[in-house]
Amino acid sequence: MTTQSIISRYKQIRQFSEKICEPLKTEDYVIQSMPDMSPTKWHLAHVSWFFETFVLGKVNPNYKSPNEQYAYLFNSYYVQAGDRFFRPHRGMLSRPTVKEVFEYRKYVDKYMIEFLEKTDEESFNKIKVVIEIGLNHEQQHQELMLTDIKHLFSMNPLYPVYKPIEKIAEQKIENINWIKFDEGVYQIGYDGDGFFYDNEKPVHKQYLNSFSISDRLVTNKEYLEFINDNGYKRAEFWLSDGFATVEREQWLAPLYWRKIGDKWMYFTLNGFREIELNEPVCHVSHYEADAYARWTNARLATEREWEVASQGLKIEGNFVENESFHPSAKMDNNRIKQMYGNVWEWSQSSYLPYSGYKVPEGAIGEYNGKFMSNQMVLRGGSCATSKTHIRNTYRNFFPPHSRWQFMGIRLAKDVD
Amino acid sequence: MTTQSIISRYKQIRQFSEKICEPLKTEDYVIQSMPDMSPTKWHLAHVSWFFETFVLGKVNPNYKSPNEQYAYLFNSYYVQAGDRFFRPHRGMLSRPTVKEVFEYRKYVDKYMIEFLEKTDEESFNKIKVVIEIGLNHEQQHQELMLTDIKHLFSMNPLYPVYKPIEKIAEQKIENINWIKFDEGVYQIGYDGDGFFYDNEKPVHKQYLNSFSISDRLVTNKEYLEFINDNGYKRAEFWLSDGFATVEREQWLAPLYWRKIGDKWMYFTLNGFREIELNEPVCHVSHYEADAYARWTNARLATEREWEVASQGLKIEGNFVENESFHPSAKMDNNRIKQMYGNVWEWSQSSYLPYSGYKVPEGAIGEYNGKFMSNQMVLRGGSCATSKTHIRNTYRNFFPPHSRWQFMGIRLAKDVD
Amino acid sequence: MTTQSIISRYKQIRQFSEKICEPLKTEDYVIQSMPDMSPTKWHLAHVSWFFETFVLGKVNPNYKSPNEQYAYLFNSYYVQAGDRFFRPHRGMLSRPTVKEVFEYRKYVDKYMIEFLEKTDEESFNKIKVVIEIGLNHEQQHQELMLTDIKHLFSMNPLYPVYKPIEKIAEQKIENINWIKFDEGVYQIGYDGDGFFYDNEKPVHKQYLNSFSISDRLVTNKEYLEFINDNGYKRAEFWLSDGFATVEREQWLAPLYWRKIGDKWMYFTLNGFREIELNEPVCHVSHYEADAYARWTNARLATEREWEVASQGLKIEGNFVENESFHPSAKMDNNRIKQMYGNVWEWSQSSYLPYSGYKVPEGAIGEYNGKFMSNQMVLRGGSCATSKTHIRNTYRNFFPPHSRWQFMGIRLAKDVD
Amino acid sequence: MTTQSIISRYKQIRQFSEKICEPLKTEDYVIQSMPDMSPTKWHLAHVSWFFETFVLGKVNPNYKSPNEQYAYLFNSYYVQAGDRFFRPHRGMLSRPTVKEVFEYRKYVDKYMIEFLEKTDEESFNKIKVVIEIGLNHEQQHQELMLTDIKHLFSMNPLYPVYKPIEKIAEQKIENINWIKFDEGVYQIGYDGDGFFYDNEKPVHKQYLNSFSISDRLVTNKEYLEFINDNGYKRAEFWLSDGFATVEREQWLAPLYWRKIGDKWMYFTLNGFREIELNEPVCHVSHYEADAYARWTNARLATEREWEVASQGLKIEGNFVENESFHPSAKMDNNRIKQMYGNVWEWSQSSYLPYSGYKVPEGAIGEYNGKFMSNQMVLRGGSCATSKTHIRNTYRNFFPPHSRWQFMGIRLAKDVD
Repeated sequence: MTTQSIISRYKQIRQFSEKICEPLKTEDYVIQSMPDMSPTKWHLAHVSWFFETFVLGKVNPNYKSPNEQYAYLFNSYYVQAGDRFFRPHRGMLSRPTVKEVFEYRKYVDKYMIEFLEKTDEESFNKIKVVIEIGLNHEQQHQELMLTDIKHLFSMNPLYPVYKPIEKIAEQKIENINWIKFDEGVYQIGYDGDGFFYDNEKPVHKQYLNSFSISDRLVTNKEYLEFINDNGYKRAEFWLSDGFATVEREQWLAPLYWRKIGDKWMYFTLNGFREIELNEPVCHVSHYEADAYARWTNARLATEREWEVASQGLKIEGNFVENESFHPSAKMDNNRIKQMYGNVWEWSQSSYLPYSGYKVPEGAIGEYNGKFMSNQMVLRGGSCATSKTHIRNTYRNFFPPHSRWQFMGIRLAKDVD
Repeated sequence: MTTQSIISRYKQIRQFSEKICEPLKTEDYVIQSMPDMSPTKWHLAHVSWFFETFVLGKVNPNYKSPNEQYAYLFNSYYVQAGDRFFRPHRGMLSRPTVKEVFEYRKYVDKYMIEFLEKTDEESFNKIKVVIEIGLNHEQQHQELMLTDIKHLFSMNPLYPVYKPIEKIAEQKIENINWIKFDEGVYQIGYDGDGFFYDNEKPVHKQYLNSFSISDRLVTNKEYLEFINDNGYKRAEFWLSDGFATVEREQWLAPLYWRKIGDKWMYFTLNGFREIELNEPVCHVSHYEADAYARWTNARLATEREWEVASQGLKIEGNFVENESFHPSAKMDNNRIKQMYGNVWEWSQSSYLPYSGYKVPEGAIGEYNGKFMSNQMVLRGGSCATSKTHIRNTYRNFFPPHSRWQFMGIRLAKDVD
Repeated sequence: MTTQSIISRYKQIRQFSEKICEPLKTEDYVIQSMPDMSPTKWHLAHVSWFFETFVLGKVNPNYKSPNEQYAYLFNSYYVQAGDRFFRPHRGMLSRPTVKEVFEYRKYVDKYMIEFLEKTDEESFNKIKVVIEIGLNHEQQHQELMLTDIKHLFSMNPLYPVYKPIEKIAEQKIENINWIKFDEGVYQIGYDGDGFFYDNEKPVHKQYLNSFSISDRLVTNKEYLEFINDNGYKRAEFWLSDGFATVEREQWLAPLYWRKIGDKWMYFTLNGFREIELNEPVCHVSHYEADAYARWTNARLATEREWEVASQGLKIEGNFVENESFHPSAKMDNNRIKQMYGNVWEWSQSSYLPYSGYKVPEGAIGEYNGKFMSNQMVLRGGSCATSKTHIRNTYRNFFPPHSRWQFMGIRLAKDVD
Repeated sequence: MTTQSIISRYKQIRQFSEKICEPLKTEDYVIQSMPDMSPTKWHLAHVSWFFETFVLGKVNPNYKSPNEQYAYLFNSYYVQAGDRFFRPHRGMLSRPTVKEVFEYRKYVDKYMIEFLEKTDEESFNKIKVVIEIGLNHEQQHQELMLTDIKHLFSMNPLYPVYKPIEKIAEQKIENINWIKFDEGVYQIGYDGDGFFYDNEKPVHKQYLNSFSISDRLVTNKEYLEFINDNGYKRAEFWLSDGFATVEREQWLAPLYWRKIGDKWMYFTLNGFREIELNEPVCHVSHYEADAYARWTNARLATEREWEVASQGLKIEGNFVENESFHPSAKMDNNRIKQMYGNVWEWSQSSYLPYSGYKVPEGAIGEYNGKFMSNQMVLRGGSCATSKTHIRNTYRNFFPPHSRWQFMGIRLAKDVD
């Protein structure tokens, strides 16, 4: 990684955040439609705060933030980086305005580019990991911006359209093939030279029983059969917490689905429309994914099975670069299809430290380790993930009831 | 009331709503900072919906709303006028945009003016009461727009300024004089020819014991003595529900007050600044007003005492037309001062129907009658009320824990 | 009132509390089935604590409580009498046991009787008002014990029976007659020589318009017509808070009613059984009473109208002394029937101080005044009230959503 | 397992449940002091319902429950066994009385013994696994009865004593020794001939890195150093959910600890008293155990490390048979001490199915599998566990915030 290549990646990633905002009106940047969600304006400022705090604040003793309060307003959860504004109140802030936030971005960019252009190799080497984290961090927030805007728009009876739909080519879907893997000791964790998150380390050995994994994702059509078989009412398929959630939240289908007369419709970033049967099912919680799998007499893969199964596959699929912002029935050319892109795939693994994991020192150490509780691992990226962001060792994580990310289902099985 | 005079009042009142918005940024129109509060955008649209639904929809068979969903989005609580969007979700709507809402206003105005210019006297007479209600209704929402914006801005650590403060002239305050009224049968309720709300009727007789009323409002200085005497910790002064509220909400002072070091500061529409001691105390709940009064060995006036005491006074004082948007220590020329404007004055009367009150038929009948439960009456208008809107029989009402309106305290006493 | 007569009343009232407990098992004394309700054990101890604290603690310097912690555990809300155990945790206390509570009662009784037998007239005169309050207070808790036990039993799918039902004689019901009262100045408030609560004073004048009042209570049959006319779904009859409560609580009928197949059943202290159509409707909130009245084009009486209407009637009816513990269709011999006993009658008056009311000094002053907020007045007593406890000036009060007392409906009307 | 041996175990275990109740008053059986906790009466009936439903209902076509509603009232969570009474309402039931519950137990025992005495081997073999589950199930509820009674008593300001304390012999505590285990493939899961729960199966291989484990539990003294080092205020040691829980619940120390003046006291089943410094710390959540471990630069063991470390140790320690009902500083004779009894040891493993796990068919299948979500594994049993109930493969599980069981801390470490 040279400074030239990083300048170019920095510009490209920063611009892509702003590109995502192009379809938005000023009013769309402001609202927090649920506690887990953040206003677009906040995302745009927060990722800039990250560079300000963890890069500029360290390398440039003269750097001054355009507004001293931004450090307080745009810190997300870094306890060691100072006080934070109460998360569920992010939607209380009409100021700074959207314009001021874009100016803040420009300001930070100016100093970042200036630093990168002038720095010597030694100084650069000391900080480059943090810059890489900052860029990956911004890519994560790009995904959140899309899923959060989707949530906000879905609450509005006017159903705003983020990007109008083009004609979708019809896709045929083959029956599932089960791809088998042998029992044995496997190596797990990131072992390359590029960027990785701390939670993908250390590389370690894992004994796996033989297993099979489905060669494609579960479709809307297949999931509808579960719904029609009364799946949401039959406790025998569900984890106890899952069924309690179904009853409390009165879930009857994936998030954003709505039955109008006889037809199942869903809200998408392309508008409110009838569901496509062959697409991968999306916006299901871990509970729903797990219950669906039991109903088919299969199960979800463990995250280590998923990692083993994806070794050697080419990273191709329906990513955010496609700008469809929706899962697609189209298949890629890998032996196991749809492993990357489209939807994050729920595993049956809790998000826990790998054997030998150490939390890094300082505020950056809060990035991953402290969330290792009450979350399940997801793998493979989605249609809102950047292709340059994903790896086969990449561990995403959300609580088992979460549904507002692009989350779906791949089945696995024991081999007897 | 002629059509010409009503056209002129219509234009003036409608324009004043937009004038109130001049200091706002687009982002300020969107947010709902608490369930009782509505975004400015919603207020602007709702008052237009009122004219659309209750006037244009009745008098103009060809009238079509610019968007059919507005009837759903901008109905506040008129059950008989159709379904309503869930009130605490008003802040979930980024669309229609602010621009679209202003266009909606123009559209309604065009049809309203057209109607008023062309209508004959008979048709006009049938609908003129409703138009008057619509205009008074818009004036009420102008007041809410100001108090709601104040609440929103107060949540923001950047403390946005609605209107910068000018130098405040120092005012001297005299000791309280107690003005006495004799025992006897009094007439209560609106008995004139102008506009009135249904809840001010019917005129009826009321036997009152002799009483005295203070000739001015309670000041910040006087209220501070209550705070400093540990008033918020001494249950003996409080209604049981009031003390429970104090403990649950951890109230230590009026809303918007904050102690910084040794100084009491408050958030105002003119910015965050040190309190002025001689100003009328403001943003207190009925519970606080009642407890303060007991602490002084006095009490609040009943609404009928207030009405009797205000008979014959000139309607002058610090109203919204002053554009200070804040209570003032300045006195008017009446025998009993500050009865009008500055702050709404809590009475000790529950909001109940007058003897013989009948709820009007149809959706308009939902205006007042159905709120006659769990509310206390306030009298006299505030610095956010229009001078043309208030009367000495005017009955405002809020739940006893409410504090975000401009609400204050006047004392009364039995005469032994 | 002589000491002899008060000793006899003291014994009789204290014994009646224990008589009410005869049908109970030990387990029935312990549970708090909702935050408003208290375990029987707590009631029995609390009324004894009252005598201990406000009588024995004042007159007998050597008096020591059997357990110092009882003062903390059994204080209800007297802030000035010291700290209190958190009300919603009253059901957390398995100890003191029921046996220990009965011993506590005996202990207090011993000291009370001893004091009353030995005291001289002067000492007695100083304290006799407090003793009278203590006795009336215990009678109030006797009523609560019955309504609280009813609530507890109703939660149990085994539907325990407090007192088995005897054969109910069929009763015929006449059509309503409207009894008219003339316009004029009336005197309101207690003006006799006996015991009264502070809230019944001072005697004062009130101007009333002419009104009519129904000569009997509303029956189950009449109320069923309201239910069958879809009354619980039609917002136009309801106060706004009332309809919100109906929707939130999913009310479809009075408390304890349950539709089994085609039949309306209710839970009573005599067991779970089919409703009797001619009985007065019971266990309705103020909201339901008010909505029912509107549906009939009538209204509830104000508390002052009720008081005027009841002047001169004989206090007779279905009281707790009947030991039926349920309203009855049987009529008394008054011109206006069922004014006393059977069910407390909701008025349309908020519970507010009478003109000139002063809160008494000290902890006893917390008895009534501090509850004058968010409550509605009820009049006339119920089938759980002692005949010796009620007066025509007696003001009972509960929040408008309360239904677990024996509460019912009498209609009134304006006279045009 | 012969019928004779099972009859004897059946009697012994059933009698031990009743022995646990000997110190209780009738009132103590009734109350539910928090939603997770159940009244003793309910436990006693529920374990009998288990035999009634899963044994007698299957083997005896003429068996009739003494009350048809018991099946509804005393089902805990077996969805497939029919409807259940709402769990948080278990404390609403004053009936059936304690006496009736004991009669219910006798009734079930009579039929169970009769069946066991008369059955032939073939019939017995079909049902014996279910009987074993029933007995182990009752032992689990014996532990819950003790921890639930402790919780109830702790809520009472009178601090009832379950069993008075005897003089505690002083114990010396040695410094921690770290016992090392080598890297390699280990076998995990139950591999014997006796009883086991489904979640201990199947036996499978696991690759473990080398690790060290402490040879004794963490003591109160050691934990106090963490408290005194401001451990509850320093976010850097805590999981994010954990710190949020600490702040929300205002935790300052383990459950039942209370600082009186300068001294830390705790509530125990032997009364409220000063803490013993050398005892194992108890009543900490997973969050606290994890934060403590980080503060010492160690970590918790995984459940598989714990299982490997405990292989070959003798099952001895402070179990419920000791009847101290409290952890003890006394050491056993194993190389690694206090692995069994005293306190359940939090692992850092989420409760998940072992590779190849299958949920058994039918209602019995609801015993373990459906709880595999949002829970952490604990190992080794406590002072409230029966010595005959525990195994080194035994997997207990609770949500990470739970503290009311006897739960404590053992440290582990990576070996570099």
